[in-house]
Amino acid sequence: MDLDLIAQLQQPADSKIVLLVMDGLGGLPRKEGGRTELETAQTPNMDALATRSICGLHQPVATGVTPGSGPAHLGLFGYDPLVYHVQRGVLSALGIDFPLEAQDVAARGNFCTIDDRGRVTDRRAGRIPTEVGAELCEILSQIELPGVEVFVEPVKDYRALFVLRGEGLSEAISETDPQATGVPPLEPQALRPEAAKTAELVKQFLAQAQDALADRHPANGIVLRGFAQKPNWPSFSDVYGLRAAAIALYPMYRGVAKLVGMEVLDVHGEIEDEVATLEQAWGDYDFFFFHVKPTDSAGEDGDFDRKVGLIEHVDTLLPRILALDPDVLVVTGDHSTPAVLKSHSWHPVPAMLYSKTGRPDSVTSFGEKACLAGAIGPRMPACELLPLALGHALRMQKYGA
Amino acid sequence: MDLDLIAQLQQPADSKIVLLVMDGLGGLPRKEGGRTELETAQTPNMDALATRSICGLHQPVATGVTPGSGPAHLGLFGYDPLVYHVQRGVLSALGIDFPLEAQDVAARGNFCTIDDRGRVTDRRAGRIPTEVGAELCEILSQIELPGVEVFVEPVKDYRALFVLRGEGLSEAISETDPQATGVPPLEPQALRPEAAKTAELVKQFLAQAQDALADRHPANGIVLRGFAQKPNWPSFSDVYGLRAAAIALYPMYRGVAKLVGMEVLDVHGEIEDEVATLEQAWGDYDFFFFHVKPTDSAGEDGDFDRKVGLIEHVDTLLPRILALDPDVLVVTGDHSTPAVLKSHSWHPVPAMLYSKTGRPDSVTSFGEKACLAGAIGPRMPACELLPLALGHALRMQKYGA
Repeated sequence: MDLDLIAQLQQPADSKIVLLVMDGLGGLPRKEGGRTELETAQTPNMDALATRSICGLHQPVATGVTPGSGPAHLGLFGYDPLVYHVQRGVLSALGIDFPLEAQDVAARGNFCTIDDRGRVTDRRAGRIPTEVGAELCEILSQIELPGVEVFVEPVKDYRALFVLRGEGLSEAISETDPQATGVPPLEPQALRPEAAKTAELVKQFLAQAQDALADRHPANGIVLRGFAQKPNWPSFSDVYGLRAAAIALYPMYRGVAKLVGMEVLDVHGEIEDEVATLEQAWGDYDFFFFHVKPTDSAGEDGDFDRKVGLIEHVDTLLPRILALDPDVLVVTGDHSTPAVLKSHSWHPVPAMLYSKTGRPDSVTSFGEKACLAGAIGPRMPACELLPLALGHALRMQKYGA
Repeated sequence: MDLDLIAQLQQPADSKIVLLVMDGLGGLPRKEGGRTELETAQTPNMDALATRSICGLHQPVATGVTPGSGPAHLGLFGYDPLVYHVQRGVLSALGIDFPLEAQDVAARGNFCTIDDRGRVTDRRAGRIPTEVGAELCEILSQIELPGVEVFVEPVKDYRALFVLRGEGLSEAISETDPQATGVPPLEPQALRPEAAKTAELVKQFLAQAQDALADRHPANGIVLRGFAQKPNWPSFSDVYGLRAAAIALYPMYRGVAKLVGMEVLDVHGEIEDEVATLEQAWGDYDFFFFHVKPTDSAGEDGDFDRKVGLIEHVDTLLPRILALDPDVLVVTGDHSTPAVLKSHSWHPVPAMLYSKTGRPDSVTSFGEKACLAGAIGPRMPACELLPLALGHALRMQKYGA
């Protein structure tokens, strides 16, 4: 969808839209002929809603393509991820409220374990707790580089944010995470000539970091990926005319919501706390992005049953969202994370759109196979979901006379 | 799909992909309310595979558009035929292993019958056998033109390849085949100013050819179509990272496979010989394009029952392909050739994708109507099938962080 077109057509209304995203919702059967996580879960509330909704599956990026979290969410927000491309460094910065400036170059840092021959043996440094990561960030923040400021901020667990601030920096730097164990980190390379100075600064930083972390096993190394500068995109409110709020517990998702200009609400704790935040903020916004992270984590861990249980837990909370009487409620995931693959995947993602102006199809349960028969179809581009919601919210004028 | 994107995302894996193409597979019922050729055929093996697959229909070029063989196959190979356009002359050259050079201009020649008033009466010259065609090509090869080399090579039956080799040639020449009988061949025209010299050379060739063939009734004329120079496209292995082999008995299909850089395996005989070739080459490649021609020929001949029988014959061979244990097997056609139309048609083409990472839909038989309910959907662009297969073969990295 063309955001300019939507920006021209959108009109004010009193209606409210909720986008409920269970991260990594789509799944696969444990074995051939079986049921997926969502199909296995007992979800009476979602099934009842499916009966009143239009259903289908969306395709996050493109056919056969497995999305990362950033692109997958941009798609759900209506920003075609093949057009609006953002690197992890920027998302990490936004997710921790780091005030990224226009010239800054940000990267995601992962603490890792390095053996005595310089090879990465654990890309997550034994999943050190956030407090340990914070301590290490404090140490690395002391590193000084010529002519630029260095920031190293804790994100979560073994994850950190690395930022260089100064004149003439470039984001065109190759990542140092080898994406494998048993091999050393990669050297940062300038991907364009104008990035030579930045690449040199990153090299100096990494050399000093190696010394500073030497006795901090298992977090005795750091790799950097997703070097990026802040993009300049049309904002969510300009495109859709919506006062939009994001409710998300995990930095990445707050980050991508902030990137498109949503207001990120202050929330801590569990999914129940997110629901309470939604209830409290209900009067103040037109649109709520409501993010549920643990479904994806369970999929990544290969824990089919935990993912089933989490979906069932969300189902029990659905009546509280419905009690707010939203005009449009979209329930979906950002991508599939089948427990059997222990990773994101390219499979289309179940989606249902309930609305007071809807024309329900014949689907009566919320699952991958059932949704195939729905009005949304088997592979709608994810970036069309939000325009569809806007239409159902009576927030778009007629196109043409 | 953007081939650059796929080239960036593709990653190595041990998986193997088979693309089984029954040419002209899609069909129509003999009469309203009846079954198509595929629906009529007894295909227990395909039906069992459909149950384990995702199913649907693909659209070769665009809605309502009937594809030629070249574009239809380029689409199946993931090259959008509206972007990657190739003329028949180049395909004919590649199909007979003619070593086309970068500046050559090639055209497909069809021997035809001309009456005493210069009108085409049979566009296929009574389907003369290949040996007669070869003899005529030998005669026409003697024609000399100023400043260029002339090649006339037999292809099959009444079909020939015409090539001009020299400096400053252009492919922008209109075809001389009137695509009708009862009218004379058309004059070759320069479609752009820089093609004037080439058009003049083609005219001289045709004038001399008319004299040389005068007493060779029914093949006393030749028409030329599909003037083209060799395109310079990204290769199949660069895009997909696959060692790809083509198994095809008919020159056109070997040609289009070669055009995208597949290795064309040496095979002669019948479909069984193609299967034996697949079995022998199994260890040496990651991807196999397996082409079955006679289904299309039966459709072109309007022989509904023969087409049914051929589909049933392929069905009996399917277990041998499955016995090789492919990670992904796509079964489809390149386009529809309904026997009742005796020609290619615009109708979407049944397709199923079996994979070890698949999420089967509810489709339990392989036919046009049954596939409508499948996960591939009722009209997926053909050029998305191969990226989808690549995803299912775990040969694509995640897009974005």
